[in-house]
Amino acid sequence: MRTELCERLGIEHPVVGFSPSEQVVAAISRAGGLGVLGCVRFNDADELDAVLTWLDEQTQGRPYGVDVVMPSHEPTEGVAADLDRLIPEGHRDFVERTLLRLGVPPLGVEAEKRAGVLGWLHSVARSHVEVALTHPVRLIANALGPPPPDVIAQAHEHGLLVAALAGRADHARSHVASGVDIVVAQGYEAGGHTGEIASMVLVPEVVDAVGEGVPVLAAGGIGSGRQVAAALALGARGVWMGSVWLGTAEYQSAPALREALLKARSSDTVRSRIYSGKPARLLRNRWTEAWNAEQAPSPLPMPLQNLLVAEAHTRLMESGDPSVVPMPVGQIVGRMNEVRPVADVLADLVAEADETLTRLGKLAV
Amino acid sequence: MRTELCERLGIEHPVVGFSPSEQVVAAISRAGGLGVLGCVRFNDADELDAVLTWLDEQTQGRPYGVDVVMPSHEPTEGVAADLDRLIPEGHRDFVERTLLRLGVPPLGVEAEKRAGVLGWLHSVARSHVEVALTHPVRLIANALGPPPPDVIAQAHEHGLLVAALAGRADHARSHVASGVDIVVAQGYEAGGHTGEIASMVLVPEVVDAVGEGVPVLAAGGIGSGRQVAAALALGARGVWMGSVWLGTAEYQSAPALREALLKARSSDTVRSRIYSGKPARLLRNRWTEAWNAEQAPSPLPMPLQNLLVAEAHTRLMESGDPSVVPMPVGQIVGRMNEVRPVADVLADLVAEADETLTRLGKLAV
Repeated sequence: MRTELCERLGIEHPVVGFSPSEQVVAAISRAGGLGVLGCVRFNDADELDAVLTWLDEQTQGRPYGVDVVMPSHEPTEGVAADLDRLIPEGHRDFVERTLLRLGVPPLGVEAEKRAGVLGWLHSVARSHVEVALTHPVRLIANALGPPPPDVIAQAHEHGLLVAALAGRADHARSHVASGVDIVVAQGYEAGGHTGEIASMVLVPEVVDAVGEGVPVLAAGGIGSGRQVAAALALGARGVWMGSVWLGTAEYQSAPALREALLKARSSDTVRSRIYSGKPARLLRNRWTEAWNAEQAPSPLPMPLQNLLVAEAHTRLMESGDPSVVPMPVGQIVGRMNEVRPVADVLADLVAEADETLTRLGKLAV
Repeated sequence: MRTELCERLGIEHPVVGFSPSEQVVAAISRAGGLGVLGCVRFNDADELDAVLTWLDEQTQGRPYGVDVVMPSHEPTEGVAADLDRLIPEGHRDFVERTLLRLGVPPLGVEAEKRAGVLGWLHSVARSHVEVALTHPVRLIANALGPPPPDVIAQAHEHGLLVAALAGRADHARSHVASGVDIVVAQGYEAGGHTGEIASMVLVPEVVDAVGEGVPVLAAGGIGSGRQVAAALALGARGVWMGSVWLGTAEYQSAPALREALLKARSSDTVRSRIYSGKPARLLRNRWTEAWNAEQAPSPLPMPLQNLLVAEAHTRLMESGDPSVVPMPVGQIVGRMNEVRPVADVLADLVAEADETLTRLGKLAV
């Protein structure tokens, strides 16, 4: 299975694998896909720089990419302390009461108080871009539409390709008008921030909207070779996969998270604003259900909601209780039932895709 | 494009087309698919009998099917008048106030007061089955899981195949255990009653759950040959399509409805309980938004909700205002942009599917 995307990105298989884990990213690129590192967790650009230096070694000259989260409009700025003042007291009370009710212990005295995800701030995302441009990065992806024009221009000057996620055909069209090279058509079933149109409908709509010249990657619901073949049937030139890697051996996961992911069925996710302030698909559990209750407050807008729940996220994750882990994941979680190395997952995926393509070729008249 | 489903159903193309319109159903069967008539609108079994007699002539010996809505559990029974007493006055007031606010005129003096959809009652659905068994029907489908065991047995005695819709793999497994011959895996993107798992994830899950011996039809989001090929890639033996036929020349549509369907984008639908009491995907418009407002009441359970809104549905449809038509339709509505005969839609679909399958065959190593 090769598409012209393979030539364009210098990869063997048209599989782009997103992960916040540099171990996963390195393994994907070494196995012939394109690993893309999620940068939103790096509040400090120097930390990202160190990780990219590690990736430069580990990928052994194979291409890799980075994913930033850069809203193209209305950035809410400010340091954490300023933003903190915008969070209503009632919301804080709700979080505390809920953690108490769920039996989640407070942070240990040794625990580092994390500041919450600031990568959604424009200034922080820009620092990610600046660092990335000093490394041999092949692709820069933006999870919230096209990056600002000067960032696209800068990336192009450095010979990088720019990708942007789109959940609607009209958004995809405007991404391309802004200079984006590759559109990731991300369906409703995807994990993390995602829209309402499912992949079966969205992918061909986006493919037709952007035209022949712009490669489209299908994202959302893809974890097997049959799904890769379906994405190619819909007109995608490749796939963008994120959730599946959470179940790999390389993903360093708390035992409670691993247990929750392995156990979850495809119906055990929910699309909600409680993680970041924008709709994102998460593992459904006692934490997400608490926010779904009638008396629960409405989630705050991005970036306030994540600041509100940042410490709660740490407490929930460290509680060791699989029924409360806060985790973005797609509906494909239902098929993540054993822990395997990235290379095995990718090899099986490619083999099944090839089998499927052969089977389909025989069905044609 | 032929699969063994074609032999099994005696059709040319593995395309099953659902419609409440007998004109559409006849045209689908004549064009080489399997037309399936939605029976839920027939409150009177004699009326269904007459329509099936017409279909027997019009299908010219080609196979066709019927679709009933028979909940396998807890049938709420009773004549319309009894059920009416279970509807809270506050709900009636909300409907009246909303119609007034939306500028929807009352019914004309000549208008027939319709009783609402009673086909969701078990007794009515059973009368549909009895009538169907006196006609040369090839397939009986149930939209709410497997029909009761005696209905399945009776259908099998008459040589009919039994199909049931499933929105989850575990439901599909239990349908097959109940004796269902064909499972329709219906994804989130589908119109009408539908679940939360999107087709990309659901179809291969259901295929694997029911095993090789049970053909699976993919439903939800399918309107083009690329989507048919994607469904086959996912392991389906064919497709079940409903929404697409609403845009055909054979579908006798009020001008306001036609205008609304042609104009809607894929993002212009909403999954809501306001139509029947169970979650169903509808065209999003001023009527659905009114029920979405903070002060709107929660929809009533099936079958009460439809009785509550039955007269409102008639008024909304007869208002001639495209921005209020109450209409179940899937996300594929975004691609329904011109009115064409059923035979043309099907011929193009098959041609595009064949092209796609050929293209995919060439991508295999």
